[in-house]
Amino acid sequence: MLPADLASTVARALAEDLGSGDLSAALIPAQRQLQAHIISREAGILCGQPYVNECLRQVDPNITIHWLHSEGSIIEAQQELCRLEGPAAALLTAERTALNFLQTLSGTATLTRRYVEALSGTPTQLLDTRKTLPGLRMAQKYAVRIGGGRNHRLGLFDGILIKENHIAAIGSITKAIARARALAPVLCKIEVEVETLEQLEEVLAVGVDLILLDNFSIEQLQQAVRRVAGTIPLEASGNVRLETIRTIAETGVDFISVGSLTRNLQSLDLSLRYL
Amino acid sequence: MLPADLASTVARALAEDLGSGDLSAALIPAQRQLQAHIISREAGILCGQPYVNECLRQVDPNITIHWLHSEGSIIEAQQELCRLEGPAAALLTAERTALNFLQTLSGTATLTRRYVEALSGTPTQLLDTRKTLPGLRMAQKYAVRIGGGRNHRLGLFDGILIKENHIAAIGSITKAIARARALAPVLCKIEVEVETLEQLEEVLAVGVDLILLDNFSIEQLQQAVRRVAGTIPLEASGNVRLETIRTIAETGVDFISVGSLTRNLQSLDLSLRYL
Amino acid sequence: MLPADLASTVARALAEDLGSGDLSAALIPAQRQLQAHIISREAGILCGQPYVNECLRQVDPNITIHWLHSEGSIIEAQQELCRLEGPAAALLTAERTALNFLQTLSGTATLTRRYVEALSGTPTQLLDTRKTLPGLRMAQKYAVRIGGGRNHRLGLFDGILIKENHIAAIGSITKAIARARALAPVLCKIEVEVETLEQLEEVLAVGVDLILLDNFSIEQLQQAVRRVAGTIPLEASGNVRLETIRTIAETGVDFISVGSLTRNLQSLDLSLRYL
Amino acid sequence: MLPADLASTVARALAEDLGSGDLSAALIPAQRQLQAHIISREAGILCGQPYVNECLRQVDPNITIHWLHSEGSIIEAQQELCRLEGPAAALLTAERTALNFLQTLSGTATLTRRYVEALSGTPTQLLDTRKTLPGLRMAQKYAVRIGGGRNHRLGLFDGILIKENHIAAIGSITKAIARARALAPVLCKIEVEVETLEQLEEVLAVGVDLILLDNFSIEQLQQAVRRVAGTIPLEASGNVRLETIRTIAETGVDFISVGSLTRNLQSLDLSLRYL
Amino acid sequence: MLPADLASTVARALAEDLGSGDLSAALIPAQRQLQAHIISREAGILCGQPYVNECLRQVDPNITIHWLHSEGSIIEAQQELCRLEGPAAALLTAERTALNFLQTLSGTATLTRRYVEALSGTPTQLLDTRKTLPGLRMAQKYAVRIGGGRNHRLGLFDGILIKENHIAAIGSITKAIARARALAPVLCKIEVEVETLEQLEEVLAVGVDLILLDNFSIEQLQQAVRRVAGTIPLEASGNVRLETIRTIAETGVDFISVGSLTRNLQSLDLSLRYL
Amino acid sequence: MLPADLASTVARALAEDLGSGDLSAALIPAQRQLQAHIISREAGILCGQPYVNECLRQVDPNITIHWLHSEGSIIEAQQELCRLEGPAAALLTAERTALNFLQTLSGTATLTRRYVEALSGTPTQLLDTRKTLPGLRMAQKYAVRIGGGRNHRLGLFDGILIKENHIAAIGSITKAIARARALAPVLCKIEVEVETLEQLEEVLAVGVDLILLDNFSIEQLQQAVRRVAGTIPLEASGNVRLETIRTIAETGVDFISVGSLTRNLQSLDLSLRYL
Repeated sequence: MLPADLASTVARALAEDLGSGDLSAALIPAQRQLQAHIISREAGILCGQPYVNECLRQVDPNITIHWLHSEGSIIEAQQELCRLEGPAAALLTAERTALNFLQTLSGTATLTRRYVEALSGTPTQLLDTRKTLPGLRMAQKYAVRIGGGRNHRLGLFDGILIKENHIAAIGSITKAIARARALAPVLCKIEVEVETLEQLEEVLAVGVDLILLDNFSIEQLQQAVRRVAGTIPLEASGNVRLETIRTIAETGVDFISVGSLTRNLQSLDLSLRYL
Repeated sequence: MLPADLASTVARALAEDLGSGDLSAALIPAQRQLQAHIISREAGILCGQPYVNECLRQVDPNITIHWLHSEGSIIEAQQELCRLEGPAAALLTAERTALNFLQTLSGTATLTRRYVEALSGTPTQLLDTRKTLPGLRMAQKYAVRIGGGRNHRLGLFDGILIKENHIAAIGSITKAIARARALAPVLCKIEVEVETLEQLEEVLAVGVDLILLDNFSIEQLQQAVRRVAGTIPLEASGNVRLETIRTIAETGVDFISVGSLTRNLQSLDLSLRYL
Repeated sequence: MLPADLASTVARALAEDLGSGDLSAALIPAQRQLQAHIISREAGILCGQPYVNECLRQVDPNITIHWLHSEGSIIEAQQELCRLEGPAAALLTAERTALNFLQTLSGTATLTRRYVEALSGTPTQLLDTRKTLPGLRMAQKYAVRIGGGRNHRLGLFDGILIKENHIAAIGSITKAIARARALAPVLCKIEVEVETLEQLEEVLAVGVDLILLDNFSIEQLQQAVRRVAGTIPLEASGNVRLETIRTIAETGVDFISVGSLTRNLQSLDLSLRYL
Repeated sequence: MLPADLASTVARALAEDLGSGDLSAALIPAQRQLQAHIISREAGILCGQPYVNECLRQVDPNITIHWLHSEGSIIEAQQELCRLEGPAAALLTAERTALNFLQTLSGTATLTRRYVEALSGTPTQLLDTRKTLPGLRMAQKYAVRIGGGRNHRLGLFDGILIKENHIAAIGSITKAIARARALAPVLCKIEVEVETLEQLEEVLAVGVDLILLDNFSIEQLQQAVRRVAGTIPLEASGNVRLETIRTIAETGVDFISVGSLTRNLQSLDLSLRYL
Repeated sequence: MLPADLASTVARALAEDLGSGDLSAALIPAQRQLQAHIISREAGILCGQPYVNECLRQVDPNITIHWLHSEGSIIEAQQELCRLEGPAAALLTAERTALNFLQTLSGTATLTRRYVEALSGTPTQLLDTRKTLPGLRMAQKYAVRIGGGRNHRLGLFDGILIKENHIAAIGSITKAIARARALAPVLCKIEVEVETLEQLEEVLAVGVDLILLDNFSIEQLQQAVRRVAGTIPLEASGNVRLETIRTIAETGVDFISVGSLTRNLQSLDLSLRYL
Repeated sequence: MLPADLASTVARALAEDLGSGDLSAALIPAQRQLQAHIISREAGILCGQPYVNECLRQVDPNITIHWLHSEGSIIEAQQELCRLEGPAAALLTAERTALNFLQTLSGTATLTRRYVEALSGTPTQLLDTRKTLPGLRMAQKYAVRIGGGRNHRLGLFDGILIKENHIAAIGSITKAIARARALAPVLCKIEVEVETLEQLEEVLAVGVDLILLDNFSIEQLQQAVRRVAGTIPLEASGNVRLETIRTIAETGVDFISVGSLTRNLQSLDLSLRYL
């Protein structure tokens, strides 16, 4: 699913770069044409084609782009990713913003793929979180999907996660779940975050759609999995790293969510060169 | 200087998280109040207070915040950064977006400070680039300033940088500079990017405000510095790392620009806890 | 939960009425003050206070309003609902838009309450649909909640409902459900619409979170309820009327959705009078 | 005249339904195509084609639509109204919003036509009011025109109607008319609302462009018509129903305005079916 | 009547000046305060206070302004118009935009007043046109009112003016007027532009609300006034200058419209000085 | 360089004229086509083609336009500037806004050209200022470039000009320049305004990129030019008129800025006629 805010996200990125206009591209004679290609400088997962396409379209619909690899492909270093052609001034204006999207989203998809590979062979699914770069939530959630991960929820509007502080403000886990059941839209799931096995018991007594085990040790996770015995899906979270995710998955939890997928960024190194 | 798009950047970040409304916070009784504080989980430079303040204000002007450290301060791990108080539902709604700004911008300011420290004692200044996270350009440029770096330009609109491809499309360095001098607003500087010492000579023959030495080796940088002899400021760029920046600075260049300052992100680890 | 688009919905309604400015109110001397009250001309459920308040605030923050009944109250004919006071010109400008919101939303809440009462004593819950007045989706969903109904989903973004045509385009019910399970955010429920008992069997073989029985006869509904036996919640829909809803509920379905709740409107008759 | 806000009204309706994206349509393979048609389930006036066309265009310009009846046609039950063809996912995404416009506006046009028919043979014209659904003012005014009614004014900006409360705030009818004549744009008409025959006399003494007789009895209307004797057009308003409008018209008033045309809605029952 | 787009007009003017932020004001220490006043450098009509106030409010609500003359006052050269006080950086940021509004609108009001004075003693009223500065229509129409002129219409939406080309496209004056009577909102006046006395006859045969005599000679105007004899108001237009307007008025026309009121601009010379 | 806000400037101008819709054009049958041309009524510089083109495109992409003279051409009176063809209603709707842009921008370009001609043969360049019509900054700056002038800066965001009041608020010229050098983006020039020869000395002691000599007499300008001796470019400003600009230029200053270029307007007289 392409994010519904794709066009406005691109428009905003172009606006902040262009401001009142591109002073340097204005030096170029209007009729000049250019050809260019984008080259990978390191290996990774290619992600962001719809953002690049939209960016070029907004700057000048006369720019054409031909992709040599499909969205989500595994890319090696020094591969040609696409070919571009069009008015020289427009290409130079769009270049940086297009690359910024491609290297950012490919970076997130690439990291996601590494976590997914660390889980390979287990039934556990990798989830993202709401710890994202401000303004890029939907784009990053998209990159997580392209990388093979799964979205937890997109925001506060499409799922209920009752955390410690919601419980404190409402009074008890039981009361919070009861309110959620009465008020939530029918197609919305309810998840409760627990920090101890005692809280887990309280949730099990009432029932919910999903349980988040926050910062549980491996032993606690194992106990929780045994206790719940498949009746309710379990999600583990808290300081998960590439080195630890497989051990966590082997406790038998259904989902593991990883904040650093989207709150940190190692962008993929790319280069646009003119031919 | 606070970015002029601060309020709209915050509004956009809130909108993508809130969507049609916060289903979880809706469970909390309207009159409930909460107190909270934000704690650092690692050392770094604190950056993003105006974004956090604006975020809280937009969600609910009844939330109050008291900062215990000033913007740009050096923060140790486990320090209390600020105290918040206000309606429980509003605080829970704003929490994630506020933290996303603070951890993102503090991350960039912290990395900037490391580079600045690597340059300490030299007259060379650290510059940023246009390799930024789409939609966060002005916020990241602000974080670079808070971290002690200096902005190169904010976008395509406030400075002319004539690159290889502009030159190719216009015909020659000499012609490109002549056009820039005729067309640029008077308060706008003109910089030319060169990739060889031969190109440097061509620029020197005409004169510009700044010269960018792209991917020059240390030896080439030394030669360039000697040749120019202080008549025009010089900027070095290309794959600069924390380990190499000082050696580059010691060639005598005036500025060094670092793309990874803003195209990668290691966000600062923070936590909001309720009291 | 107040709709997140409340302020923009009000702004748009004011803009279409005000256009370039209120020519009639411009005749009134600036310092003139007025008092007014809103009176019900028929019985119903009062709904729309936050919209009225926001409307007055946007026209002139100096207008004050005091509500004599709380949101969601049962109102008789000829009751005073609120008292207003403020600059005469501003009050006259805001009056029509404020009333339009109040009579529209009270109309929907009143109709919702009638359906809810028809279900009283049964465990069946009343649901709304996406058949709404363009631009008023969130406001109408809010009015349904105030009237005692429950939201099905708010839009296409917060729940998956696989209908006949999705199934046709994907290939089979089984395939559609498998794709939904793989792609949906984890906190999103999956519902499938079936039109025959055979399709119901196909869904039961795979399992989903909710099943929509579309245009089932009373007998078919009874069969479906017996067959499913409480393992999956069931929703009935299709031409439900006030006269028939209780009979449908007595088949034992968990939810009944009613399109005419929000696609038709009998607005509540109200009047604003100056004192 | 097509409303100038048509595209933004459609965009807003799509946005509230789509939110962050259509989760269900995302399940459908990208290349899948569909054909569909819209069928009437009851008789009425067809209205809303430009809104449907714009809605499809905004979702995907590759959807084509062919209308089998022209805007404003009389439609019987079970008639095929149009044929659609295009990408399956896009059609399923656009379907509900397109139908919501068509059934809403056809409902208003159909009711308008009934009132117009009740007036047939008399010279009296049917007018609408500003009692409209918030956000749909221009669309509803358009539907009234398609249904054969005439617009009174579009909003506060394109005509002056001096009501009781304007008069009270200004001081007297005479003073209010004098101010209006001095301040109104020259191409704007001035109408005064009167509630008694005495007020009518006061207006006649000064003269205006139109007089609104509010809540006059049939006898009072007859007296007013005789008194004014065609020198100034007269409009009757107040609780006009389908059963009473002809009797009111027969008093000889020039215009009758009907609030329930646009403040209530019985949407026309339509169905989109895939072929 | 204050233009409904006042705040957005000011916001746009500030945005084009501020762009990504005021680099010069950023040099000023945050706590610095300033006092200033605005001085007239020539005589004229003071106009634009609401624009100046809004401009200051948008830049910083902590700036206070005290006006020493009321909107629409006659101002001599070297008079102090207002006093301002507030944060130095904010005042310096807002200064130019505030002055641009004040000098532009005062310029238009001043010119309007000169034309009004030229008409003094005659019953003829001065009208403006749609020949305005793009984006400043409502502000200029406001300045015309402040200067003592009257608005013709605000735009294409609030009055019908049938010109030569409308007539040509519709077929005849008679047909055009008939269509306008059938389609126009009831509170909207219909005016027809004529270029000859023959066309005038054709209009008189059908009747309209206003007649525009375009580019008539003084003799033709006299003939037209005699012929119409007060039954329909007459407007003269076409190359009207300060030197000729009184002669035109003395023909007895009711209105004279002057395009150069708003399509040219001699801004009033003002200066903001710090104390 | 075309202004980046061109499309939104045109959209805003159309919106203020069209409002809820063009009532007069609505009278014209939909299929009617028209041909028209724009004729100059006086000599000048043609400027504004991209604004006219965009205006027509936004109203109806089916309108075609063929320009007979290129942007920036010298035009005589009674020349045909372009030919238009398209739907009659759309052409009549777009006509006024298109002409308003063309006559406004041609007016500014024409005046600019006169000043440029007055400087011909001298090396001095003509500059504009920030004294512009609110909302038309970028359009006017564009017209100045087309007329042969040069932009000083576009706004507060793309150049630093330290004026008297900045200096007062910061403490001294020396301190202000030091702050600017530390904080400004590297590609941004720093200019200081001086009002006396003593202040000039203070600036020279520290050095800047440009010096603005405000309201200097011819003798003072001569002294300043001699003193600076080409080491720093000099700009003269203050009450420059067509009659005085050459004398000022002959003092040897590099730039002369003229506020009345853009704060006053004598629009070029144009006429659109239908064929």
